[in-house]
Amino acid sequence: MAEQLSNGVVQPGYEPVRERFEALLAEDPGYSASVAAYVGDELVVDLWGGARMRQDSIVTTFSCTKGVSGICVGLLVERGLLDLDAPVSEYWPEFARHGKAAVTVRQLLSHQAGLVGVDGGFTVAELLGHERLAERLADQRPYWQPGAGHGYHAMTIGVLTDELVRRTDGRTLSAFYTEEIRLPRDVDFFIGLPESEDGRVVPLLPPELPEDPELVAAMQATFARGTIGGIAMNAEVAEFPPLVDLANSTALHRAGPPAMGGVGNARGLAKLYASCISDVSGARLLSPETVEAVTRLQVVGDDLVLGMPTRFATLFQKPDQRLTYGSHRAFGHDGVGGGIGFADPATGLSFGYTTSEMPLPGGADSRALLIHGALLICGA
Amino acid sequence: MAEQLSNGVVQPGYEPVRERFEALLAEDPGYSASVAAYVGDELVVDLWGGARMRQDSIVTTFSCTKGVSGICVGLLVERGLLDLDAPVSEYWPEFARHGKAAVTVRQLLSHQAGLVGVDGGFTVAELLGHERLAERLADQRPYWQPGAGHGYHAMTIGVLTDELVRRTDGRTLSAFYTEEIRLPRDVDFFIGLPESEDGRVVPLLPPELPEDPELVAAMQATFARGTIGGIAMNAEVAEFPPLVDLANSTALHRAGPPAMGGVGNARGLAKLYASCISDVSGARLLSPETVEAVTRLQVVGDDLVLGMPTRFATLFQKPDQRLTYGSHRAFGHDGVGGGIGFADPATGLSFGYTTSEMPLPGGADSRALLIHGALLICGA
Amino acid sequence: MAEQLSNGVVQPGYEPVRERFEALLAEDPGYSASVAAYVGDELVVDLWGGARMRQDSIVTTFSCTKGVSGICVGLLVERGLLDLDAPVSEYWPEFARHGKAAVTVRQLLSHQAGLVGVDGGFTVAELLGHERLAERLADQRPYWQPGAGHGYHAMTIGVLTDELVRRTDGRTLSAFYTEEIRLPRDVDFFIGLPESEDGRVVPLLPPELPEDPELVAAMQATFARGTIGGIAMNAEVAEFPPLVDLANSTALHRAGPPAMGGVGNARGLAKLYASCISDVSGARLLSPETVEAVTRLQVVGDDLVLGMPTRFATLFQKPDQRLTYGSHRAFGHDGVGGGIGFADPATGLSFGYTTSEMPLPGGADSRALLIHGALLICGA
Repeated sequence: MAEQLSNGVVQPGYEPVRERFEALLAEDPGYSASVAAYVGDELVVDLWGGARMRQDSIVTTFSCTKGVSGICVGLLVERGLLDLDAPVSEYWPEFARHGKAAVTVRQLLSHQAGLVGVDGGFTVAELLGHERLAERLADQRPYWQPGAGHGYHAMTIGVLTDELVRRTDGRTLSAFYTEEIRLPRDVDFFIGLPESEDGRVVPLLPPELPEDPELVAAMQATFARGTIGGIAMNAEVAEFPPLVDLANSTALHRAGPPAMGGVGNARGLAKLYASCISDVSGARLLSPETVEAVTRLQVVGDDLVLGMPTRFATLFQKPDQRLTYGSHRAFGHDGVGGGIGFADPATGLSFGYTTSEMPLPGGADSRALLIHGALLICGA
Repeated sequence: MAEQLSNGVVQPGYEPVRERFEALLAEDPGYSASVAAYVGDELVVDLWGGARMRQDSIVTTFSCTKGVSGICVGLLVERGLLDLDAPVSEYWPEFARHGKAAVTVRQLLSHQAGLVGVDGGFTVAELLGHERLAERLADQRPYWQPGAGHGYHAMTIGVLTDELVRRTDGRTLSAFYTEEIRLPRDVDFFIGLPESEDGRVVPLLPPELPEDPELVAAMQATFARGTIGGIAMNAEVAEFPPLVDLANSTALHRAGPPAMGGVGNARGLAKLYASCISDVSGARLLSPETVEAVTRLQVVGDDLVLGMPTRFATLFQKPDQRLTYGSHRAFGHDGVGGGIGFADPATGLSFGYTTSEMPLPGGADSRALLIHGALLICGA
Repeated sequence: MAEQLSNGVVQPGYEPVRERFEALLAEDPGYSASVAAYVGDELVVDLWGGARMRQDSIVTTFSCTKGVSGICVGLLVERGLLDLDAPVSEYWPEFARHGKAAVTVRQLLSHQAGLVGVDGGFTVAELLGHERLAERLADQRPYWQPGAGHGYHAMTIGVLTDELVRRTDGRTLSAFYTEEIRLPRDVDFFIGLPESEDGRVVPLLPPELPEDPELVAAMQATFARGTIGGIAMNAEVAEFPPLVDLANSTALHRAGPPAMGGVGNARGLAKLYASCISDVSGARLLSPETVEAVTRLQVVGDDLVLGMPTRFATLFQKPDQRLTYGSHRAFGHDGVGGGIGFADPATGLSFGYTTSEMPLPGGADSRALLIHGALLICGA
């Protein structure tokens, strides 16, 4: 009998998921990942494998954090603290500057406001410190006419969301998430990592450079200094660290900027999404009405930052040709570190995945979708 | 002398149209079709041919019916009963639910409201019975943020239009059409077929499966259960009959749902369109101002349901790369049964076409456009 | 030592620009062009070459004139005379007809209003005479629902802009430009050419027909009579002269319609753009705030007239895949005669280029971008 390549458990009927995962592990000796899935409130898959991943490992999940921020926004909507159709300036008066008075929360949180960065760029300290960058964003002229299109606010969407949480609930997004979601539900996903958990963090490995020089050139052109893409990636600031270095810094983990600073594992991501659509670990976080409201498709088409088609709801990504993970009701978010979390209310499936080596091109590791495919074969 | 393949007449100068039609009939022994064209108020082409098509044959025209519904809406606009810029909820208060209070008639009738179906799908009885499905649509949360994009409301647009007719004129769309247009103008096109005409109906043949497996897979993916396309095609309901069975059911003919239930022939379609732009069979139905208002391009770009570019006015399709049938002023609608009707105010040409075998991929039989090309050669 | 192919001067460090220009001149004996560039307020490149171009030569610049009109609009905004968010009908009450009351200045000047022409087309006299065509445009039903999309108002945008200048400043655009910009700053670019300058005009040569018959057919289809493209190109009027004949008519030069009638050279274009972002020839024309306001991206995506992706700010073009001339802050306009003018506030570079033979396909001569590339190599 062959040595078992993966660890953890799958419920009866989900053995093909383990088989798929083990086949991927066998194929690539450098591969480490964790994967978890709920059907309704039942954890049916809880696996990890590879040399770098243990049961309690956690990794920087980059933009998967945006989905978790979306869950927080859902909770604010559920509680009547935030109205998606209200102007942002109703909650945040300084935001009205430079013709932004009429921009709605709905527009802002679906990447339509043109606030992908600030003139001259920002420092890591500003990103992690929040207040100064929030002030600068309120004072920023939009990089396109709000509503003229949409473009991925890769880093700033977190600051903008955090400020809306502060202006409505009063707490920071990190505190709100920790006190309202993580602690009561014992979720292994952190926005603002306590020192006590530092030892569990597995550093991310940088991506291998792609072999295709055209792909490299295209990526460089899309995110070059001076382009809208470059603004979104803060390319204006030469000393801004590479993403992998930022991802592996304790300062990032501790601050937990809500666009990219969340640290966790597949089990945590899957549980968070399952909490939105089922009674796992307590009554469901969001009513079906709220889930529908924050996961409704808001924008579709070519993205002014990424230069490819994207689809967004309120903070959440919607399934598209690149991420074919569910029905039109599904919602989630992937990250440049390769991870992804999502739920599909149509099937009751919730899914989390993390890996420890950044894939290229950026976004969910394609193996996550292969494993998801095995889940579908099992009838999930 | 060769046996004549087609029947009917063409006016002097339009012989090339007959030649083109006969060449197509000669090419495919299974082909049956009817074709008619007006230039201004003169019927210049009135042909039919093939084993299954007689002079008085009528067929289910599927979405060609939407164009006829568009003519009815034009008449309501002409009479001042319906304002395209008014909120739908002004006429239909229940429609305001779930954030739809501000959706305008213009948006709704150009496929922008995101009401492509109802949660859980609907039965044939609901589709044909109207009231219950109208209520469910009023109570439905949009499948995308209204205005975020457009997607073909393949079946529901008829229910939505019918309800607007009922709320403004008071009659059903079927009664309105019959009493205001069909009977006074003696049009061989029915929305709500009387029993007396049943004997003239030629059943549609189902489409031959395409040979290209990639095309089949792409169509299946676009309209799969759980996708926006699947919602629009009511794929949620396993027992919903195949379109061809629905098309051939007397219940459909009798009810005449305005998205797909119209039964008629090329002569009827051509006369309806000619009535919009000329004084055929009485004074023109719609003023040039009204024609302009209801045929103005409202949406353009990738369709959220069909996954390909579409262009719509108020209910009418506009010419595009797939349907190159006229100037920017032209308006019409094709159907999955292969038929098409349209008019072009720029040239005065009105055109109708029906066939008795559903083509693949769905929409106007490409032979209709070839015959239209022959008309253009004749100077029409 | 080889004979010098180009004339004029480059500042130290910009020799590669001359080398590039001379290489292009050497390659094509029929090539004549002028090129100029400012870095900040310093003229670093001032070159001309080829048999047909002298130091003081001027040519019809076609749509480069739209960019100069954009500068005039910027000056109106700067002076508080024109509010981009106001309805056009606030300044021009007759414009409100046919459902255009709510169309904003911002929409109109970014090609969104659907006023690409007038029914039946217009004469050259109407284009050059302005008043009658302005009246007809005010009375025109939009060719698409305003806001449904954008399409290049190739000729009419000038009439529309001119009327807004007249309704706010009181002068014609030509007089406003001449008195406020050209004379005080001694710019060799004319909107309304005085007779005294006629001798300097170099007639444009018509484009050589492209060798690719598919390209010819595609262009003909895009701008055919009856299409939206044809409306924009006034193809309805058979006697409307070919663009090259219009370009070479003294009547056009004298009238200076602001969409296409500007006559000047590279030095003039470069100076105009430099005046927007630096203190060349006096204090800068526009504050950075105004520059940002009028050069902000307003529309992006497939153009309803041109059938390809375009990006517009308020009158200005923004860099795109076809015109990769600068950062997201850059703004400019090219013309069907091959010329282009632009500035990039991010780098301080301002650029002008004219040539005397119309290239195909229409728009900036690709050699202009090659020369711009040489400027970038010099660190501009």
